[in-house]
Amino acid sequence: MAEEAAQEQPSPAAPRPVRCIVKLGGAAITNKGELESINEESLRSACAQLRQAMSESDGDDAPGKVLGMDWSRRHGDPSDPAVDAERIAGVAGLGLDTNFIVVHGAGSFGHFQASRSGVHKGGLHSTLVKAGFVATRISVTSLNQEIVRALAREGIPSVGMSPFACGWSTKQRKLASANSSQIIESLHAGFVPVLHGDAVLDELLDCTILSGDVIIRHLAQLLSPKYVVFLTDVHGVYDRPPSDPNAVLLKEIEVDDSGSWSVVKPALMQGNNKGVEISVAAHDTTGGMETKILEAAVIAKFGIDVYITKAGTEHSLRALKGDVSTDSEDWLGTIIRSSE
Amino acid sequence: MAEEAAQEQPSPAAPRPVRCIVKLGGAAITNKGELESINEESLRSACAQLRQAMSESDGDDAPGKVLGMDWSRRHGDPSDPAVDAERIAGVAGLGLDTNFIVVHGAGSFGHFQASRSGVHKGGLHSTLVKAGFVATRISVTSLNQEIVRALAREGIPSVGMSPFACGWSTKQRKLASANSSQIIESLHAGFVPVLHGDAVLDELLDCTILSGDVIIRHLAQLLSPKYVVFLTDVHGVYDRPPSDPNAVLLKEIEVDDSGSWSVVKPALMQGNNKGVEISVAAHDTTGGMETKILEAAVIAKFGIDVYITKAGTEHSLRALKGDVSTDSEDWLGTIIRSSE
Repeated sequence: MAEEAAQEQPSPAAPRPVRCIVKLGGAAITNKGELESINEESLRSACAQLRQAMSESDGDDAPGKVLGMDWSRRHGDPSDPAVDAERIAGVAGLGLDTNFIVVHGAGSFGHFQASRSGVHKGGLHSTLVKAGFVATRISVTSLNQEIVRALAREGIPSVGMSPFACGWSTKQRKLASANSSQIIESLHAGFVPVLHGDAVLDELLDCTILSGDVIIRHLAQLLSPKYVVFLTDVHGVYDRPPSDPNAVLLKEIEVDDSGSWSVVKPALMQGNNKGVEISVAAHDTTGGMETKILEAAVIAKFGIDVYITKAGTEHSLRALKGDVSTDSEDWLGTIIRSSE
Repeated sequence: MAEEAAQEQPSPAAPRPVRCIVKLGGAAITNKGELESINEESLRSACAQLRQAMSESDGDDAPGKVLGMDWSRRHGDPSDPAVDAERIAGVAGLGLDTNFIVVHGAGSFGHFQASRSGVHKGGLHSTLVKAGFVATRISVTSLNQEIVRALAREGIPSVGMSPFACGWSTKQRKLASANSSQIIESLHAGFVPVLHGDAVLDELLDCTILSGDVIIRHLAQLLSPKYVVFLTDVHGVYDRPPSDPNAVLLKEIEVDDSGSWSVVKPALMQGNNKGVEISVAAHDTTGGMETKILEAAVIAKFGIDVYITKAGTEHSLRALKGDVSTDSEDWLGTIIRSSE
């Protein structure tokens, strides 16, 4: 199932292993019904949980101690940002394990521009596709900017890195070139790279859309994080649309060597997988559920546990901390893991 | 004077020669006195002139014919962007020679964050420097986003590319690694790369600031554009601060093989160069005048004419079109060229 690994430039020396790659799902951090609208509360909560998961001390930080790194003006706020340089210079260290990578989806950003123009189909000779490529990148990079700022406000040393600018490209929509050396250098230097689904160049089609899920799959294979977390707007993977009152949350999915998966929990599902119509969020438009499960299954096949759960809950905090096991009866979410 | 060329990754096949590299000076496109404030009128005018310079037909385009490529919501405007996909799909081509690269300065963006934290001095073990690195990048990339959008609104297929994300880095503040293959691929595909001065990693200092002028010098050496234009907020290079009523505009500067320069026009300056205290804009903070003249002199040494002129004037439009020669008596600006 796994496609050929994309061509890698020679990498710098491998850093200490990445602890976690996090997908901030578009459905979780944006308001789907409204063009280019961020779900501010959900984003803030996800960033605060990320900070807690990174924290090297137990317990919550006092809010006053957060070392904010967004020193820019906010839209609609005429006051200058307050920066207490002396206080910050006196802080001995961040006290954070920053060995995380964040990848986010597009949600209500980019989708409108991409679908109006058909960027994913390629063909840059078309003025509509060319204009749509530009418009899509403007939309997704503006979301990236807001997510980097939200992380920085929580004291996370985040740096935005657009896959297009990094030189990532595809061939017939499959990842063909993915230079990750700058991502590794940034981790080395103590920064948290923030990538996103992007419009990219394609060797055969001229251009297409590279989804955040494919980016995560590639980085997981390359960097072997301890675990991968997908934050979305429902509790995990269900056997039918979660809006259905009879929908059952699949708590544990096992992936074998061939890439086939089977539901381990709940036990009643066993032996009945063919009939299970899996669904996460019906309105998660980036890639859809099938792509997400397929990418998660490929990651699990590498021996990396994947946790899919709802953003902004106690369950997402536990997932981000890696504090989840197949014995965690009180954890709500889906674990996808290798059968090995 | 020229430092060692930065290490280049293997490049794709060279595209048709780049026509022009344009520096949008921070002083020209931002309001210097006000933190993170864009000079909207100056930016709009510069983008419109760039479009005119790229236009393959003579005369001005009718405004209604501009194929806007910013389909995102604007801050403070609740209305959805209007996109006439059918009309755009029916347009046979852009009618633009897009073989341009835009590099912009920081002006009132980034400077505050960089100077408060001392990012240019390096030392990422300091929490202040680390936080300042993040804050500086947030500020300069937010300006980049606005410039890409302003270009896109004028129908220029612009794509933002941050030097940090592209993997550009320095060693003891000198450019050490500068992978330009994605810039070249983007030009190939008909896009206009938009780069900017950025906070970058440094092999010896951990981090520093890479100025837009150094980026231009490197790209000029690599891609041999027909000419390079620096747009600023005064008419060109003067023999003393332009605010001085006795300041004389230096119309032509010649650079010899050794990198030394001499004023050719006005003639009265000849033989008196040592005493000329050159100045452009006293409040142009990015690199200062000495860096700018030095970088321009290195570019001229490659045999590429450099035009320094005031944004938003008939002179800047002529410069962007390459319609300037040493015989242009009615052109206000500074030409820096090789003596060869």
